[in-house]
Amino acid sequence: MTVSINSDMGESYGIHSFGNDEALLPLVDAVNVACGFHAGDPVGIHEVVTAAASAGVAVGAHPGLPDPVGFGRREMALTPEEVRDLVLYQVGALRAFLDAEGVRLSHIKPHGSLYGMVGRDEALMDAVCDVAVQYGVPVYGLVGTAHERVAGRRGVPFVGEFFVDLGYRADGSLIIARRPHATPPELAERRARLALAEGEAETDTGTRIPVTFESICVHSDTPNAVEVATAVRGVVAAARTENPGGSVA
Amino acid sequence: MTVSINSDMGESYGIHSFGNDEALLPLVDAVNVACGFHAGDPVGIHEVVTAAASAGVAVGAHPGLPDPVGFGRREMALTPEEVRDLVLYQVGALRAFLDAEGVRLSHIKPHGSLYGMVGRDEALMDAVCDVAVQYGVPVYGLVGTAHERVAGRRGVPFVGEFFVDLGYRADGSLIIARRPHATPPELAERRARLALAEGEAETDTGTRIPVTFESICVHSDTPNAVEVATAVRGVVAAARTENPGGSVA
Amino acid sequence: MTVSINSDMGESYGIHSFGNDEALLPLVDAVNVACGFHAGDPVGIHEVVTAAASAGVAVGAHPGLPDPVGFGRREMALTPEEVRDLVLYQVGALRAFLDAEGVRLSHIKPHGSLYGMVGRDEALMDAVCDVAVQYGVPVYGLVGTAHERVAGRRGVPFVGEFFVDLGYRADGSLIIARRPHATPPELAERRARLALAEGEAETDTGTRIPVTFESICVHSDTPNAVEVATAVRGVVAAARTENPGGSVA
Amino acid sequence: MTVSINSDMGESYGIHSFGNDEALLPLVDAVNVACGFHAGDPVGIHEVVTAAASAGVAVGAHPGLPDPVGFGRREMALTPEEVRDLVLYQVGALRAFLDAEGVRLSHIKPHGSLYGMVGRDEALMDAVCDVAVQYGVPVYGLVGTAHERVAGRRGVPFVGEFFVDLGYRADGSLIIARRPHATPPELAERRARLALAEGEAETDTGTRIPVTFESICVHSDTPNAVEVATAVRGVVAAARTENPGGSVA
Repeated sequence: MTVSINSDMGESYGIHSFGNDEALLPLVDAVNVACGFHAGDPVGIHEVVTAAASAGVAVGAHPGLPDPVGFGRREMALTPEEVRDLVLYQVGALRAFLDAEGVRLSHIKPHGSLYGMVGRDEALMDAVCDVAVQYGVPVYGLVGTAHERVAGRRGVPFVGEFFVDLGYRADGSLIIARRPHATPPELAERRARLALAEGEAETDTGTRIPVTFESICVHSDTPNAVEVATAVRGVVAAARTENPGGSVA
Repeated sequence: MTVSINSDMGESYGIHSFGNDEALLPLVDAVNVACGFHAGDPVGIHEVVTAAASAGVAVGAHPGLPDPVGFGRREMALTPEEVRDLVLYQVGALRAFLDAEGVRLSHIKPHGSLYGMVGRDEALMDAVCDVAVQYGVPVYGLVGTAHERVAGRRGVPFVGEFFVDLGYRADGSLIIARRPHATPPELAERRARLALAEGEAETDTGTRIPVTFESICVHSDTPNAVEVATAVRGVVAAARTENPGGSVA
Repeated sequence: MTVSINSDMGESYGIHSFGNDEALLPLVDAVNVACGFHAGDPVGIHEVVTAAASAGVAVGAHPGLPDPVGFGRREMALTPEEVRDLVLYQVGALRAFLDAEGVRLSHIKPHGSLYGMVGRDEALMDAVCDVAVQYGVPVYGLVGTAHERVAGRRGVPFVGEFFVDLGYRADGSLIIARRPHATPPELAERRARLALAEGEAETDTGTRIPVTFESICVHSDTPNAVEVATAVRGVVAAARTENPGGSVA
Repeated sequence: MTVSINSDMGESYGIHSFGNDEALLPLVDAVNVACGFHAGDPVGIHEVVTAAASAGVAVGAHPGLPDPVGFGRREMALTPEEVRDLVLYQVGALRAFLDAEGVRLSHIKPHGSLYGMVGRDEALMDAVCDVAVQYGVPVYGLVGTAHERVAGRRGVPFVGEFFVDLGYRADGSLIIARRPHATPPELAERRARLALAEGEAETDTGTRIPVTFESICVHSDTPNAVEVATAVRGVVAAARTENPGGSVA
């Protein structure tokens, strides 16, 4: 098994553009497309799906909280029923554009605070899995959290992620800022190499924690996302060459 | 062919309830379910889809303009691309709930001002037909308008509607009020009988115009929707008995 | 000092009506008008402000979370800056309609989950007080919570509330359901009498806790809000007669 | 009287940034701040008001249609009452931030399609003037349209505008694209000079039409807005020197 690179896309909102979707598409293997709740509008979603189809990358759904002003990064107290239905609604909406462009739904990756909420609360992750089961697709998430545990229990294929442009705390949780900042490409490269070669990440306190993953996420909205993706692409390609049949960690 | 009765449903918005969905379901043959733009939220949509599945009625999509405060009843200047993508988005979202409940998508009926806009503008109706073609379902609309003409040209099955709780102008257009008002059941009954028996509707100026249709719409949000539907149900049942193999107009 | 009766109003959302504003206005002393985020749209807000002006009741702002589908009843993780600015925005918007109708802003009462959040988190309540200081108006809230503590520290006049149509837990917190239910008028009457006469409320476990307040809230959206308000009105009037110069608890 | 330069600002939407507010502020005399309906969120509005206060520029309200995905650039069929109330709501909301920062409201300039709608429909412009009268401020608009006529009739001070980054049609109407494009600074400079020196604009068909104005608008969201503003600033400064006491056209 080789490691893929994924990126969140389609997060513009009408005339308000966001990220570097066009430049990043050739550098990634899979994209997670916003579905209209935290960002993304019908025309913009259609555009990125069409571009992703042309680029031949896998397309997953990236459903978020119903909070465009907060970009889905402000936790909301939702019931499992609410989580299931807002994920179902968003995945279904995205699916319509995939069908229009002849692309199959690849996976589901919850966005922002929803990602964090369902990583902590098994009942909420169960709700996400209801949707994954309906569509027969894997869920992206963090190894060692409710993401992985509930997916495992429910028989939902699970794709563990590693983040090169976010910090890790000693407990393995991610440090997510409200507004994106640039990660130096050298830092991203070093993180990717450490994770791929030794299965470890350096935390904000300088310690190292084990990380297990099948995909590396590069956020599309940092000022230098293209440089970061290029750097990570290089590391992944080198790892494939060095260890053609190997898996990570 | 016999005449069916259809009704718009799922138009609540969170805690803001709307219409008499539960009481009307046993009285109609098909429902048009709001998809979240003019009204309808994920949990509410799911509830009405589940109830419709139990009642065994056909379920269509009722996509509207992105204007919950205006309830999709304020025309917006949209491009064909915008219409196609917002209809695609909404139909896809609804479809997710239908799949969850094992119900197939029956048809598409645009809501409110979108219904009027695509009835006048062939390029916009073409956009709706793009979605109908993708899903392989008929579109509901008004005979003699762009609804029918474009559906015909595109090979999209078309279901003409008659409205018992709206007034007609001499040119065949509908008089739509922003806020619903009660239609006396006797008036609805008389209108249904005139339409079914003689293929005519009385206009606001007292003249008669021909109406051709396969389905009668009863709005769910008038104060006496249940009485109106009951009255129309009676007329339709009687017409079926009198003319078991006949079609209308 | 006598006890007043207040009620939340203006919580319709376009065509989606809500509550019994018209019938309740003659029964209350003060209204808290929704400001567009959890509910309320410009035309609907204007209508209720005009009606309140005619009725001669005091009009306060009832700002909520930016979540119309959740009716402001799903907690959101907001920073103090976000709370201050969304309260400022909403109070300013309401103020425009008050100015138009020649009514002065009477007070601020946060809605739903925002009410709960600022009752627990002093930094958030500080943000609400920033707005109250700017407008020179009191804040409504619960005695013994951050509402009262921060208002006191900031020199913001504070009006403690008692709720006759919500349950109390033994720790004094309110039991808030997502969807309104009817409180039997006899129960509301008994609660009002117990609170007014003895300064106590019965909790969900049957124990009694002390309650201190200057205003009783009657929610406008329960099915029998008018009966509840009438019952409470009677108790308050009787208390005024029995104890013309007295204060509560 | 001298000619001022104004620019639309505060049109970010949460994390979705927009325009070059910071760089443009030192180059303009007045800003028109988005109020949350077509763009702008409470925190972003507060930030730009604070920055404008520091820069010492005049701050007006820039209310728009309730359509963030369409950025207020899709006309909506609104009643005069709806226009009045949505302008009132937005101006009131902005006013709260102005009061917080000790800045007075300078003017009202409707945004996008609302600007066009009230320039054609006197009943809608009357609704805008209701709000201008309430706040005692001028309205920005186009000379020769309902903007000017209704303001004149209502006794509302009127500030005519000239646009250097939009095309004009032979009938004096503006050519507004959905998405901003760069205007070469030399072209903006030539247009400004022609308008200031000769009171004329060149239309899309090459003819010239007379233009009368007191303020030049430079949009903040074009890729080279700062260069355009700098160029116009130079022309205006030169005109002031050449003709210190003069007015335009």
